[in-house]
Amino acid sequence: MDHTPDIRRVDLDCLRGWHVDPDRMVADGVALPDVAAAARDVSTWDQWYAFWADRGEDYARQAEHSLGEGRQILAGELFWRACMAYHYAQFFWFHDPPMREAGQHRKAELYERAAPLLEPTALRFDVSVAGVSVPAYLRVPAGLLDGGRAPCVVLLGGLESTKEESYFFENECLRRGVATCAFDGPGQGELFFSLKLQAGFERFTSAVLDALVQRPELNSLRIGVLGRSLGGNYAVRSAAMDQRLAACAAWGALVDMSCWDQLDPDTRRAFAYVAGFEPDRLAEAGRFLDEVLDLRPVLSRVRCPVYVQHGALDRVIPVSQVEALVAGLTNASQVVVDIVEDGNHCVHNRYHLARPRLVDWIVGQLGGRV
Amino acid sequence: MDHTPDIRRVDLDCLRGWHVDPDRMVADGVALPDVAAAARDVSTWDQWYAFWADRGEDYARQAEHSLGEGRQILAGELFWRACMAYHYAQFFWFHDPPMREAGQHRKAELYERAAPLLEPTALRFDVSVAGVSVPAYLRVPAGLLDGGRAPCVVLLGGLESTKEESYFFENECLRRGVATCAFDGPGQGELFFSLKLQAGFERFTSAVLDALVQRPELNSLRIGVLGRSLGGNYAVRSAAMDQRLAACAAWGALVDMSCWDQLDPDTRRAFAYVAGFEPDRLAEAGRFLDEVLDLRPVLSRVRCPVYVQHGALDRVIPVSQVEALVAGLTNASQVVVDIVEDGNHCVHNRYHLARPRLVDWIVGQLGGRV
Repeated sequence: MDHTPDIRRVDLDCLRGWHVDPDRMVADGVALPDVAAAARDVSTWDQWYAFWADRGEDYARQAEHSLGEGRQILAGELFWRACMAYHYAQFFWFHDPPMREAGQHRKAELYERAAPLLEPTALRFDVSVAGVSVPAYLRVPAGLLDGGRAPCVVLLGGLESTKEESYFFENECLRRGVATCAFDGPGQGELFFSLKLQAGFERFTSAVLDALVQRPELNSLRIGVLGRSLGGNYAVRSAAMDQRLAACAAWGALVDMSCWDQLDPDTRRAFAYVAGFEPDRLAEAGRFLDEVLDLRPVLSRVRCPVYVQHGALDRVIPVSQVEALVAGLTNASQVVVDIVEDGNHCVHNRYHLARPRLVDWIVGQLGGRV
Repeated sequence: MDHTPDIRRVDLDCLRGWHVDPDRMVADGVALPDVAAAARDVSTWDQWYAFWADRGEDYARQAEHSLGEGRQILAGELFWRACMAYHYAQFFWFHDPPMREAGQHRKAELYERAAPLLEPTALRFDVSVAGVSVPAYLRVPAGLLDGGRAPCVVLLGGLESTKEESYFFENECLRRGVATCAFDGPGQGELFFSLKLQAGFERFTSAVLDALVQRPELNSLRIGVLGRSLGGNYAVRSAAMDQRLAACAAWGALVDMSCWDQLDPDTRRAFAYVAGFEPDRLAEAGRFLDEVLDLRPVLSRVRCPVYVQHGALDRVIPVSQVEALVAGLTNASQVVVDIVEDGNHCVHNRYHLARPRLVDWIVGQLGGRV
């Protein structure tokens, strides 16, 4: 048979040059045709934002149209697609803060439109920490286990992941009978405007926990935490400082910033940006981050079971951080290490195999179904 | 910012030269890393089958392992991934019938392993048509509408799509409260071994309907049919000949084989193969197909509402077939035409926008939730 490939060429991997992992995008629910169109049609970085913002507005229009027709399920999905398009519009757009911030606001607004239409609904609530309002979303599975009270997993974003980004991941928890709660902490998403990355992320997790343990649909004894990338650091710190957390999963290990000098320049600038440092104060930002992100002084306080998943080929956070993390978890009731030999950062390149393991572990710890 | 793409290059579109649409694969649930690996690692057609069969066996091993650990949800998903890998192994592998048939058998066997683990379960049943056993799977939504009886949509495959391939599409119907039933007709999947493509596909749909209307969990007055590609032809024929079908969706219009000479040579050979003709009898196969697939004599019998979705850029079945289809549907209670201007075959390149419209239409007609 003669099999002649088409002449049209799409190289998804060109996106990696812009810090965007096509596997991650698809794993989190971005449609492949959009990812491929970005790879094909965006030839220089300055076109990136407009490409995704246009997609976002197009989805938003279609969502409004679907809503007008009474098609709520589709409308919810389209508002969420619009939100995800803006998420990627502003992604790593740190050189142009006004545009990034406009994208971040639009993204949050679009998710707020999607939230009541998702199944199960994402219920918005805000908690106050030191006078600042922290935005969070709770989704509770329709069929409750455990006498009407669902376990819950608190999902933490990292350097540039936010509370709006976990819809697909949440769905995997929800179908196993576990509620999900995602919020923006300091330096993340909506909260970036009032608070930059700072010491004491656990205060924000604990404030959200204060609200969750009061909810009649949740089992307050079965609340866990799971954090992605830098969020893995926040998750472990939260578990160390708040013994109400019954299980902790680090989707990527990050014990300290000893890898600062090995980070690529854009990632260093991004860290500095979310911590409120100008690009010309990178060295200072590095020292600040080294101090506030150092987990070693608190690791021995973790008593709950911990799961750590890390890609051996991670080029952002070296796999050596796993060893340092495990070494310090001397009082955790259990430590499970899942190093994926051919996995990259957050194992996005094996998402279909690695994410279900993460989900199953935390769900299993909290008494959900696997 | 300096954005230098990685040196690794993956051109997904090279797959199209092998009749495989990467958008379709991802839309139907194949993991992007697998699709990308096929594009990267399979350099000649003769390596294709082994690549996917290896993936399939790897998933099957992981599924067994997960099952041994009591992780049923993941095991079901992995058996289904294994099944999909074999689906693509044997896809268009018509030049080597023994290997293709081995792949088809393994695929069916792996789906049978997945079936009881899927949520909701896929319940296998067989109906007899002229002494031949026709394999079907039924999935019923957990939360039943309508006083405990769910509407149901019967899903028909086409030239090389089969009853195992619709898991994601089924999930979209199920979450809207509509049951799904998929079966292999003559020339398709498991049934190919006993029956080749032939006149009277509607006999098989009707035999399956005979079984479905007896089921206590289904509403026998709310059963519709939806067919993909060549299955769109079968769906309309079924609706014409069996008035129990309350709605009909053609995911691609195919009224007759007047496009035979415009089909690419591999597709002609594939049609001939499933109809039981040797590759050297293509002209004869064309005349046979022209006769048995001609819908025009029965179109006026269709009374139920009909939805037709077609990509204006379809290079397999020309969009002109839509006009011929609609012209003949003189007695249908409603005809909705959804031509997607930038859509390709079955609008796979806009799957995230076009499929929800198909789903919403059929679900809406059958009384499900949208």
